[in-house]
Amino acid sequence: MSGRLAIVGLGPGAPGLLAPDAAEALAAATDLVGYETYLARVAPRPEQRRHGSDNREELERARLALRLAAEGRRVAVVSSGDAGVFAMAAAVFEAVDQGEPAWRRLDIEVIPGITAMLAAAARVGAPLGHDFCCLSLSDNLKPWPVVLQRLEAAASADFVLALYNPISQARPWQLGQALQRLAAILPATTPVVFATAVSRPEERIEIVPLAEAAQAAADMRTVILVGSSQTRLLERGDGRRWVYTPRSCAGVPA
Amino acid sequence: MSGRLAIVGLGPGAPGLLAPDAAEALAAATDLVGYETYLARVAPRPEQRRHGSDNREELERARLALRLAAEGRRVAVVSSGDAGVFAMAAAVFEAVDQGEPAWRRLDIEVIPGITAMLAAAARVGAPLGHDFCCLSLSDNLKPWPVVLQRLEAAASADFVLALYNPISQARPWQLGQALQRLAAILPATTPVVFATAVSRPEERIEIVPLAEAAQAAADMRTVILVGSSQTRLLERGDGRRWVYTPRSCAGVPA
Repeated sequence: MSGRLAIVGLGPGAPGLLAPDAAEALAAATDLVGYETYLARVAPRPEQRRHGSDNREELERARLALRLAAEGRRVAVVSSGDAGVFAMAAAVFEAVDQGEPAWRRLDIEVIPGITAMLAAAARVGAPLGHDFCCLSLSDNLKPWPVVLQRLEAAASADFVLALYNPISQARPWQLGQALQRLAAILPATTPVVFATAVSRPEERIEIVPLAEAAQAAADMRTVILVGSSQTRLLERGDGRRWVYTPRSCAGVPA
Repeated sequence: MSGRLAIVGLGPGAPGLLAPDAAEALAAATDLVGYETYLARVAPRPEQRRHGSDNREELERARLALRLAAEGRRVAVVSSGDAGVFAMAAAVFEAVDQGEPAWRRLDIEVIPGITAMLAAAARVGAPLGHDFCCLSLSDNLKPWPVVLQRLEAAASADFVLALYNPISQARPWQLGQALQRLAAILPATTPVVFATAVSRPEERIEIVPLAEAAQAAADMRTVILVGSSQTRLLERGDGRRWVYTPRSCAGVPA
């Protein structure tokens, strides 16, 4: 039997948000490859080998998965959310591009999943109901000025923003600077959603105006949604609030 | 029993890409509300009422769903993909915002799904592996100059683009003009993916350079992914190609 490689997004965390195709690929694998924290979310099977690794070794992890598949194993590479959004799928194709010619003949399948911004948006209403941009605040893989330039371009064109990888121990100041840059463009009242570990037991959601966003708590499990000029808060009967962006807009503010 | 309203994304179409939480909400509903074409994807249950409508009556459909929930029914509003991305969730919250005060006390839940761009990206590799923007080309709900301005802003900042609602009978020329605008900014070789009805029997995928994109076939079921300056094609062993955007970039092209 020739090997195969499935690149699987686990969704935000709750088993109810994992699509059957993803569950099936995980069950069919002889080998699971991924960041330890994500592997821990997959129910163990005694006959399966697990190859856990540190969060930052994406390319090395991709190469390991490709080597195993080339040996004839059925490998599942595991990501949180959707594997194609700031996750392992791009790393695997980079490794194929730079690696053994034989890897191009492998049976590779990407199985999509529910990425964090979609789960976060659903939890608070419909903040992504109109045009939006999705970007990583990490400057590990791109220069920080590029991040700022993209934030500015997106906010100036009145896109809603979904910010991934907002902060980590090694990147403590970037989020503050990003919020400051956005505050120079967007109204102080712009709704900002900090959504952490959505659908998992430790879920935490905070909705704050942009002016107070720097005080909100974020960590590596947080995705941040920043509204556009059109994004609205809606008081619910129970004192909580929905956040939504109407489907229509009249124009881009000057 | 008091009513409730679940806003459910059906995913791209294949049953294997529908999360269990969404399937459960559909099964628990006394009433299904949605565009006829999407309702047809849900297996019929004899005890369930179905309220199908035309594609363009989103607000009226949202109000019907809210009225039914206020009467004590368990309602599922059905969208394709993710309900929060150019779909029914925003319409429901608009209707709540403008409607009966009692609607704010309803039990409303949004259940996220796999939106078209994620399914399309997975099919061809990892084109959304770096920062991207997601916008609707429809000028039914926003002025056309805003669409062009956003396309320009996003492409100039080197985001990958996911374009929803690219064309319809009532909007025949907008896609051509959008592609022309992008061609003035991006290299002629930029990979463009036309992904239609992904995961359904009629699925069709075309990968073309931007210079030839105007000749590709698109309809209402198509999502278009336009690469950034970094997006790469990768020849597979079988003559087909993967498309991916590397995780890293050195800078924004001048």
